[in-house]
Amino acid sequence: MENRRNFIKKSSIYGLGLSVAPGMVFKKRDKKVTEKLRLGFIGVGLRGTNHLHNALSRSDVEVVAVCDVDPNRLSIAGKMMEEAGHKLAKTFGKDELDYLRMLEMKDLDAVIISTPWLWHTRMATDAMKAGKYTGVEVSAANTMEECWDLVKTHERTGSHLMLLENVCFRRDIMAVMNMVRQGIFGELLHMRCGYQHDLRFVKLNDGKTPYGLGVEFGDKGISESKWRTRHSLKRNADLYPTHGVGPVATMLDINRGNRFMTITSHATKTRGLHNYIVRHGGTHHPNASLKFKLGDIVTSTIETANGETIIVTHDTNSPRPYSLGFRVQGTKGIWEVDGHRIYIEDQSKPHHWDQDDSWLDRFDHPLWKKYGAQATGAGHGGMDYFVMKAFVESALQNIAPPIDAYDAAAWSAITPLSERSIEHHGMPMDFPDFTKGRWIKRDRYDWLKDRY
Amino acid sequence: MENRRNFIKKSSIYGLGLSVAPGMVFKKRDKKVTEKLRLGFIGVGLRGTNHLHNALSRSDVEVVAVCDVDPNRLSIAGKMMEEAGHKLAKTFGKDELDYLRMLEMKDLDAVIISTPWLWHTRMATDAMKAGKYTGVEVSAANTMEECWDLVKTHERTGSHLMLLENVCFRRDIMAVMNMVRQGIFGELLHMRCGYQHDLRFVKLNDGKTPYGLGVEFGDKGISESKWRTRHSLKRNADLYPTHGVGPVATMLDINRGNRFMTITSHATKTRGLHNYIVRHGGTHHPNASLKFKLGDIVTSTIETANGETIIVTHDTNSPRPYSLGFRVQGTKGIWEVDGHRIYIEDQSKPHHWDQDDSWLDRFDHPLWKKYGAQATGAGHGGMDYFVMKAFVESALQNIAPPIDAYDAAAWSAITPLSERSIEHHGMPMDFPDFTKGRWIKRDRYDWLKDRY
Repeated sequence: MENRRNFIKKSSIYGLGLSVAPGMVFKKRDKKVTEKLRLGFIGVGLRGTNHLHNALSRSDVEVVAVCDVDPNRLSIAGKMMEEAGHKLAKTFGKDELDYLRMLEMKDLDAVIISTPWLWHTRMATDAMKAGKYTGVEVSAANTMEECWDLVKTHERTGSHLMLLENVCFRRDIMAVMNMVRQGIFGELLHMRCGYQHDLRFVKLNDGKTPYGLGVEFGDKGISESKWRTRHSLKRNADLYPTHGVGPVATMLDINRGNRFMTITSHATKTRGLHNYIVRHGGTHHPNASLKFKLGDIVTSTIETANGETIIVTHDTNSPRPYSLGFRVQGTKGIWEVDGHRIYIEDQSKPHHWDQDDSWLDRFDHPLWKKYGAQATGAGHGGMDYFVMKAFVESALQNIAPPIDAYDAAAWSAITPLSERSIEHHGMPMDFPDFTKGRWIKRDRYDWLKDRY
Repeated sequence: MENRRNFIKKSSIYGLGLSVAPGMVFKKRDKKVTEKLRLGFIGVGLRGTNHLHNALSRSDVEVVAVCDVDPNRLSIAGKMMEEAGHKLAKTFGKDELDYLRMLEMKDLDAVIISTPWLWHTRMATDAMKAGKYTGVEVSAANTMEECWDLVKTHERTGSHLMLLENVCFRRDIMAVMNMVRQGIFGELLHMRCGYQHDLRFVKLNDGKTPYGLGVEFGDKGISESKWRTRHSLKRNADLYPTHGVGPVATMLDINRGNRFMTITSHATKTRGLHNYIVRHGGTHHPNASLKFKLGDIVTSTIETANGETIIVTHDTNSPRPYSLGFRVQGTKGIWEVDGHRIYIEDQSKPHHWDQDDSWLDRFDHPLWKKYGAQATGAGHGGMDYFVMKAFVESALQNIAPPIDAYDAAAWSAITPLSERSIEHHGMPMDFPDFTKGRWIKRDRYDWLKDRY
């Protein structure tokens, strides 16, 4: 009797899931679902080759195309494929728009875009229009219009977009997500997160080695300094919100029963990049006279529809150790990544922190338990293995990914909204409802399932 | 030659200090400065008797008057004086306005006010009007009008007001202040602070013991629950900002070359007190039907005139260990009280935190080096010894205290300003300039001097 009841319960849950969960509706493709995902890469710089490496290690992926405007990066990608015993892919990159030719390929199911920020939305929408299952690196969009472009193109084409936010798959984050879902923190109240990473040596280099000393950027720089630094020169905003806000948004069910409502943002004065240039290049270096616009530390606070608040920090020009500064706080307890500490009412000694390791072990996510060994070495402590797994397995079934176009839009919208708020000393800015009201009925994503 | 040059330099600095520093202008008193400060206490509850204890241990204080409406507290204060071998003081408290009779005393130089919040401004302004050197517990004011009352009364009467913010005198805070002044952090950029203290068992008790279980407050409560909890019932604001913002404001020279400009505030939903009442009193307890207005976690961000930002947190209804959450961050480094960690460029191992103990030892404040042994046991880890020392020594000379009427007003203004901002989802609110423009020339306070 007990078994039968369980069986019926399970069946009806699964039935319900299949009938109403968004993204469970299969759409037509040129051919029926392949056993191997035929994958292409737009951009094989440092980030793109990391993804390529993880794709090549999977038996369910065939890399069929690689695109980069830098012949040197194309040749590095070619060598990687050769060494992996993978047949060589078609290459593209004769000019900046050559990726469009790659998207014309019929035998290409999905693409991963790892290019400079200003190309993300353009390439992602072009890929969706070409019917490709699309993965795009963070952030997805630079302006509010671009956020809408992502959503509208997804809705118009039916093509799926996944934002490749790897921190959502970090081992501690997934364990804490597991705890959130099991109610360990009670009802969530307040979250903290951010991108606190001294990037001075990334934004400025010697034009020869990505992380070498030097104070060049733009045309005279190399790697990220070629394109990333101009954002700091011209924009005062949270330029890179998703590593922090992504994990927090998934825990708060943003766009799935909850949503971002308003944001206020404040920036400090601007000192770090100028000081670094003067120190390493001298006061007479031409870059020493530049007026960078990005405040050294940008603080944003978001209000959600369900009454939680989130502090998001952007701190990339100051000397400090790296931290994404996570805090998860609810009516029953609190976890903070800084200090690796946790306090759960009735379980921790009153008024005293526990170290979080035994808690994180106990609530280790099923995916990490199963694939943790494989994941190690994939990059960024294993996160990159899981982001690739989620992308490939979702793409193979052509189902909605765990982080979709609405998430990409809402998370990336922090950049233009914070910019406008900062300009007005913290004036609250409304988030658009990218789901057009459907957040009230969109299903919570099942972060605990073992297969996509 | 070198010695002579130093001597001239020193002399002129001291000369300058004496001629322009505000508060160095002595004002007339009824009699010439006494050797002993004749001190009175308005309010001898838990906080007031702590101050009384510290006053009784000083040889430069004579306690001449004590006022409390609770005869039980008066008798406790009397016993303390007896045990200290101190002659008994006059007592007042036959009704709530009896403190006015005490203020009529001619042989009373100074008063310390440790009463419920709603009495602070009223009593402080009455004391200043009576010509007394006035110390008031935190916060000093509940409304913007009260903030102005403090400033205007100080200016009209010439009586000094000191806000008795003890955390400004905490050993780690004074060491970090020492480091700030010596430029260890470079130019300051961003600060964090707040009052994160689970007060559920303070705001609610059984009416018999201050920290006993129980879910009563107001007329049925005892100690702080008698008066403090109604603020949580009726106001959604940062109700208690000064323990956090005080130390940070002193490091940033607020009102002395810098000032608070704008604030945005956000509150989470309200859960903690209701949940606690239900859990300990049951769903049918009358207090379980109350709708508390205070959001469980209130987040404010302040912009300063000099371009720094400050995050201020108020978090008193949730299970969590105590922390004031200090961060001091500048162009050269960062200190965080949580984790007791510090990073100073070129001195710390790149990208790695140092434990802060050796830094705090090295920059231990001269006052702590000299009086630390005496301070221990004075209450709150020694802070209370130093706040009393600052008050008494400033009052004996009738000079401006380290934390004055302008500071009391600006720091306390966070409560009404945050309240209005929260109501409008973080709308920025302007701080009034309580110094009427004089912050641009008011001298930086010398926190490193050894005597007042």
